[in-house]
Amino acid sequence: MTLGCNHTIHKSHHHFGWDNSFNPRLMIASGDTVEFKTTDSSGGQLSPNATVADIAKLDFGKINPVSGPIYIADAEPGDAIKVTILGYSASGWGWTANIPGFGLLADQFKDPALHVWKYEKGLGSPASFSAGARIPLRPFCGTIGLAPGEAGHHSVVPPRRVGGNMDIRDMAEGTELWLPVEVAGGLFSVGDTHAAQGDGEVCGTAIESQMDIGLKFDLVKDAKLAYPRYFIPHRGEDPRGKRGWDATTGIGTDLFTGARDAVKGMVDLLCRRHNLSAVDAYMLCSVAGDLKISEIVDQPNWVVSFYFPRAVFE
Amino acid sequence: MTLGCNHTIHKSHHHFGWDNSFNPRLMIASGDTVEFKTTDSSGGQLSPNATVADIAKLDFGKINPVSGPIYIADAEPGDAIKVTILGYSASGWGWTANIPGFGLLADQFKDPALHVWKYEKGLGSPASFSAGARIPLRPFCGTIGLAPGEAGHHSVVPPRRVGGNMDIRDMAEGTELWLPVEVAGGLFSVGDTHAAQGDGEVCGTAIESQMDIGLKFDLVKDAKLAYPRYFIPHRGEDPRGKRGWDATTGIGTDLFTGARDAVKGMVDLLCRRHNLSAVDAYMLCSVAGDLKISEIVDQPNWVVSFYFPRAVFE
Repeated sequence: MTLGCNHTIHKSHHHFGWDNSFNPRLMIASGDTVEFKTTDSSGGQLSPNATVADIAKLDFGKINPVSGPIYIADAEPGDAIKVTILGYSASGWGWTANIPGFGLLADQFKDPALHVWKYEKGLGSPASFSAGARIPLRPFCGTIGLAPGEAGHHSVVPPRRVGGNMDIRDMAEGTELWLPVEVAGGLFSVGDTHAAQGDGEVCGTAIESQMDIGLKFDLVKDAKLAYPRYFIPHRGEDPRGKRGWDATTGIGTDLFTGARDAVKGMVDLLCRRHNLSAVDAYMLCSVAGDLKISEIVDQPNWVVSFYFPRAVFE
Repeated sequence: MTLGCNHTIHKSHHHFGWDNSFNPRLMIASGDTVEFKTTDSSGGQLSPNATVADIAKLDFGKINPVSGPIYIADAEPGDAIKVTILGYSASGWGWTANIPGFGLLADQFKDPALHVWKYEKGLGSPASFSAGARIPLRPFCGTIGLAPGEAGHHSVVPPRRVGGNMDIRDMAEGTELWLPVEVAGGLFSVGDTHAAQGDGEVCGTAIESQMDIGLKFDLVKDAKLAYPRYFIPHRGEDPRGKRGWDATTGIGTDLFTGARDAVKGMVDLLCRRHNLSAVDAYMLCSVAGDLKISEIVDQPNWVVSFYFPRAVFE
């Protein structure tokens, strides 16, 4: 483990669901780095020897533990926590399942299915499936977020304005994520690490794979974010993206509203950053930015992201 | 003009909206190539000297003329027309507008706006906007499709199962598009050329720009496609896409249903092509394919596309 952080959160320091009354495991200052040991999204219920019979036995109360929470000093509602993803240390195995009742085509795929993957920890080669299929790997965390302001216990499944189970495949090494704070200290947690996933996570699972994560935290006062936004230094090597992509999100039960919220967020960002009129920013979004469905399975909330290439202004 | 086709459709050979009673301008055989001269989506109402005042004067009855239709010999309902995009010859100028009542944020952007672009015909440099913004160019046709089977005149604005105003930014040189045939001969038309656009076309217009287009037509008997699908040889240089991307679509009034239809189309395609079980194809879609919103402004029908990289099987 060479993530080189100055704090550590261990696997046992996890929780199920979100609740702003959970006690913080760690108090940190802006600028600190933390290494998170995580459990896979089955909460350790599936092993490298798992079979499809184990899918039927899953205890959903133990699904998707997240490691944390962490209290960031001086963070208050209206601020943002900027999280920089320093790196991942991968376990070398993972699983993908069709879990009955879950997934975009759950009405068509009613029987459980499971594929267990083995892959190089160094990620040098794609992971093999049957029929000669090989999947390139790019680790990321599916669940990353803060505690919601609303009191009580909230399911881990849907993402919210404060982030959570967003399943955005670009939460990879080098990405910077800004999360809106709703409670004092933010109460950050992370987990649900994936070795690979497409935009959408359409069957409901990715290559679910336990990993350790290195993260850096910075407090941004008075950020007044409506939804999470992020910056990725590259996405593949699309020449449009040679200076990276800014991305804004819309999170909720309706994809159309989510798309509107994501585009509104980008119009605001471009206006602030480049001193543009709103309508100029809107037209630039139309000719240069991309709408993606990052996640469409974490009921009842979907994530739409709008990507805009920084190269437009450089 | 060096598109080297063996037929030509001139600008005057255009129509407004879709109607399967329109007489074909040309009868061709499978394997033929056709050069289409097109008009821009304003139907020539905007010139390089246009001002924002001209937006208010637009006659919407003359919007989005498409060149055609072309009758492809032996094409019958249930077949597909495969269209290969040979190339574009660009005019060197274009326009982007905010048209009141049109666009994803029409409720927020109620006043007309216009930007007129000048760009190198050779597309060697990005096109300049204000505030130092520069947009890389990649010509494509926004409207490409066949006549609907349903009798009568149909607005050009919404795309349909037979294609039309899909505004898919990847309809660029080298792309292959399969369109489901609903009437004898298919009755193909094309237009609405764009010099650049992001996925979504969020303000409702792209860099609208007159171009000539070279296309090759091949008849695929008994293809039984639910929706259009396409293959792009590359998309930027995302390493996942080094062998190109297959894409399936879902077209209709609801993005969630569109996403489901697009994923169903890809599951079917992967099963047929690679002899996979449906659930294996579905899981591979989840770990390797991307959901994109290609178009969210051509009321009342949106286009969701699902992209899967061929490199997974090569």
